[in-house]
Amino acid sequence: MSNQSPESDSSESDAPEPYENLLDRYRRIAHLESGAGVLYWDQQVVMPEGGTPARGKQLAALSATTHEKLTDDAMADALDAAQDADLTAEQAANVREIRRRHDRNRSVPESLVEELTEHTSNSQRTWQEAKAEDDFDRFAPALERLRDLQVERAEAIDPDRPAYEVMYEDGEPYLPLERMAEIFEELKDALVPLIEWIEAEGDDLPSPFVAAGPHPDGNQRALSDAVLEVLGYPDEHGRLDESAHPFTSGNQYDARVTTRFKPEDPMDAFTATIHEFGHASYELGLPRDRFGEPLGASLSSGVHESQSRFWENHVGRTRPFWEGFLPTAKEHLDGVDDVTVDEAYAAVNAIYPDNRIRVEADELTYHLHIILRCELDRAFVEGDLSVDELPAAWNRKMEEYLGVTPDSDAEGVLQDIHWSSRFAAFQGYTIGSVLAAQLDHAMRQDIDDVDAKIREGDLEPLWDWMTEHVHRHGRRYPTDELVEEATGEPLTAEYFVDYVEGKFGDLYGL
Amino acid sequence: MSNQSPESDSSESDAPEPYENLLDRYRRIAHLESGAGVLYWDQQVVMPEGGTPARGKQLAALSATTHEKLTDDAMADALDAAQDADLTAEQAANVREIRRRHDRNRSVPESLVEELTEHTSNSQRTWQEAKAEDDFDRFAPALERLRDLQVERAEAIDPDRPAYEVMYEDGEPYLPLERMAEIFEELKDALVPLIEWIEAEGDDLPSPFVAAGPHPDGNQRALSDAVLEVLGYPDEHGRLDESAHPFTSGNQYDARVTTRFKPEDPMDAFTATIHEFGHASYELGLPRDRFGEPLGASLSSGVHESQSRFWENHVGRTRPFWEGFLPTAKEHLDGVDDVTVDEAYAAVNAIYPDNRIRVEADELTYHLHIILRCELDRAFVEGDLSVDELPAAWNRKMEEYLGVTPDSDAEGVLQDIHWSSRFAAFQGYTIGSVLAAQLDHAMRQDIDDVDAKIREGDLEPLWDWMTEHVHRHGRRYPTDELVEEATGEPLTAEYFVDYVEGKFGDLYGL
Repeated sequence: MSNQSPESDSSESDAPEPYENLLDRYRRIAHLESGAGVLYWDQQVVMPEGGTPARGKQLAALSATTHEKLTDDAMADALDAAQDADLTAEQAANVREIRRRHDRNRSVPESLVEELTEHTSNSQRTWQEAKAEDDFDRFAPALERLRDLQVERAEAIDPDRPAYEVMYEDGEPYLPLERMAEIFEELKDALVPLIEWIEAEGDDLPSPFVAAGPHPDGNQRALSDAVLEVLGYPDEHGRLDESAHPFTSGNQYDARVTTRFKPEDPMDAFTATIHEFGHASYELGLPRDRFGEPLGASLSSGVHESQSRFWENHVGRTRPFWEGFLPTAKEHLDGVDDVTVDEAYAAVNAIYPDNRIRVEADELTYHLHIILRCELDRAFVEGDLSVDELPAAWNRKMEEYLGVTPDSDAEGVLQDIHWSSRFAAFQGYTIGSVLAAQLDHAMRQDIDDVDAKIREGDLEPLWDWMTEHVHRHGRRYPTDELVEEATGEPLTAEYFVDYVEGKFGDLYGL
Repeated sequence: MSNQSPESDSSESDAPEPYENLLDRYRRIAHLESGAGVLYWDQQVVMPEGGTPARGKQLAALSATTHEKLTDDAMADALDAAQDADLTAEQAANVREIRRRHDRNRSVPESLVEELTEHTSNSQRTWQEAKAEDDFDRFAPALERLRDLQVERAEAIDPDRPAYEVMYEDGEPYLPLERMAEIFEELKDALVPLIEWIEAEGDDLPSPFVAAGPHPDGNQRALSDAVLEVLGYPDEHGRLDESAHPFTSGNQYDARVTTRFKPEDPMDAFTATIHEFGHASYELGLPRDRFGEPLGASLSSGVHESQSRFWENHVGRTRPFWEGFLPTAKEHLDGVDDVTVDEAYAAVNAIYPDNRIRVEADELTYHLHIILRCELDRAFVEGDLSVDELPAAWNRKMEEYLGVTPDSDAEGVLQDIHWSSRFAAFQGYTIGSVLAAQLDHAMRQDIDDVDAKIREGDLEPLWDWMTEHVHRHGRRYPTDELVEEATGEPLTAEYFVDYVEGKFGDLYGL
């Protein structure tokens, strides 16, 4: 496929020597980090349970080693020398990104990095067990310790700014938290009344796939395989597995996705698989000849999420997609022969505010789940909530925002894997949805009849457009510049609000 | 199980500080190496083909980094300081082993280590393709380059000794090549006439499992799972997968095995699975509280192979095992309801000198396959054979030692994965068989009625004995000392020769 192996424009055979020295040094670090990514995938997908202690040590050794190499005096000297050289704009972007990581980590003690990594690796197992047994107390000490370690790290990075803000910038370096606060307000203003209208006055939507359930794993696996084939996911550069929490892991050569099967609703795995494909499409669209450089790496959590949301919502949840795909779905699922396109389209878009689980949430209530988490983890990090207060605070906010109370902590405060490793990391999901709508709008200015292409399964031009406007740049531009390059304007929630108001107004007959 | 988590005897809370410093430094290296092991497993078992370039870079970064840490001045200083401290015998053994690795690698340039690792990672893919297409010319340039790089490395380690000998000591540090030459001579003297007698005068043995074939993969998988259950392989510390070349990978927490299924003969996967279990039993028997130390690592290729051969030959290929296991085998295989214990016992022990494939060879001809490889790779490393001459030289020696000629290079010179990464590494297989017989003999002095235990599937005492006498020592003793600790005498081929002459004499009615 044309979008599988983009090469960047400039040959760097005549790059200044100090720049080449810096890049050699950085590539070593990046390759170790990408190796650690394989260990993470392994832990989530195939590792036997008893391997946890060894995995924690392996990952801790890797993170301590990369930290050491990223922050040592030799790296500082290499950076200084490269910065003084005569650089192209692309080379300068590489140096800027390496500098940012170096400066950010230089004051963090290696022993803290090592402890944090090992604690995180072990905490994931503790979280899994606590969730399986619906026992928050079992997880609480690990969670509290993680908070303390993460705060210690944030204060080492920058003692003069709020720890929460510093943490947030791990995933989102270029989109200030205040911008996020504005976007959240705009969304609340649009989503809360829309959800209320739908609940009060919206039509009842059919749920034909649920009605035909339960659906065996084998059928659902075949459906996911079929979806990936339509999307053009290349077997030779990826694989599909199952895991408790669907995720994507990899790089431009090997970008793997996972999904999971809920017997009662095959659309759950369907959307999870497309979502993860979107993440993989970004990795696979990064320039191969930049592997190991910042220019060959993804930019931020939010931009990554824009790719998953684009494919999930603006492709997989559209009517044209179901016009094309429904016959294939009928091949793989039992008891759905009579389902119409309208019913299928409704089924993948239905709003259900009584859902308690973020990863199963619809496109509208999803963002209330996110806002809840951002508020809670900020309060927890800043000491306004103790660990013991978290479960009740969670349930109170669920009642406030969504009018429901989880039946258990397993379906409440324990539901997400994130708090076994990090905080201030949920914002990216909302940025992703917002940016996906903006990219979709821009793409439709450039490509004729996107709907027809989606209907016909001719999706390569869409992937190519994303590669051209997003993927191939790697970390060249800060977020707003990238968004402007791609869409002609900075990030705005306007297109997302238009999109959901239009789509759900039609669907629910408002 | 009692053999799952041995703890070593001595508490080291009061170890000298220079020793602790050295160990901290070394553990970092060992953890990075064990992380690289996961990447290797991944590459062989689950990695999509297109991931090869990234994997090569990841592994090269890991090996260069561990090399750097193993050989830098800080390690040299830490070693000197620890050596001057007041150490227990166990501590001194750890220091001795770290010193050995440091000294051996100190003169090898990091750039060579990096290049060798990346070349090896890529060569495995080249070898796979060349084997699949029966095209030796495709593999030849990679093989020649590997030889040159490995010779360069060996000469850097010790310019005053033959490169082949230096390479051999990577896997077998404590058993001189001359000892191996003597053992090979003893084996040739015993095996060649025994094979000739069997061919000329031996009874025809039945092959009831082959007669009932082909056997679907699902049945064979169930058989392998059942074998692993009888052996006591713990699910929470391992897993079984398929790979082209069966292997074991891991550590005392997570020791994984692979096997492969030949439709025509289910005993092929049966023996491969038991064999790999034996390797895993060694890893799982290493002391957990020594993870990352030499005392928590396996000693040598030959000792590792003794564990796989013990379980494969001295358990899985015995009559008592089949007395106990045959009903289980009948549950999982079709068309074998009438097979008797004698027939099953014969089937797993039959000698077939016309076989061309080492990994499918019987217990006697196996060692002729090994001798052939040792002779060829020595001649190739020492420049007496060019890469182009290898295929014909292979076929000539097959004719000479086994009276057969491979039908293709895929079944000849290309059959083994080893030459895509290293040379002088086949000796361990023969050491393993020889040592397994010696350990079996010693175990039978200590444990009452081993045959009854094997018959009843009460195998824990056998694993415990191996843990007590071999596994728990890690790298504490050089090979001959370990063998003497375990058996009362140094390594000798005597028990192996007695064992095969007795067993095959009975089986073939000689």
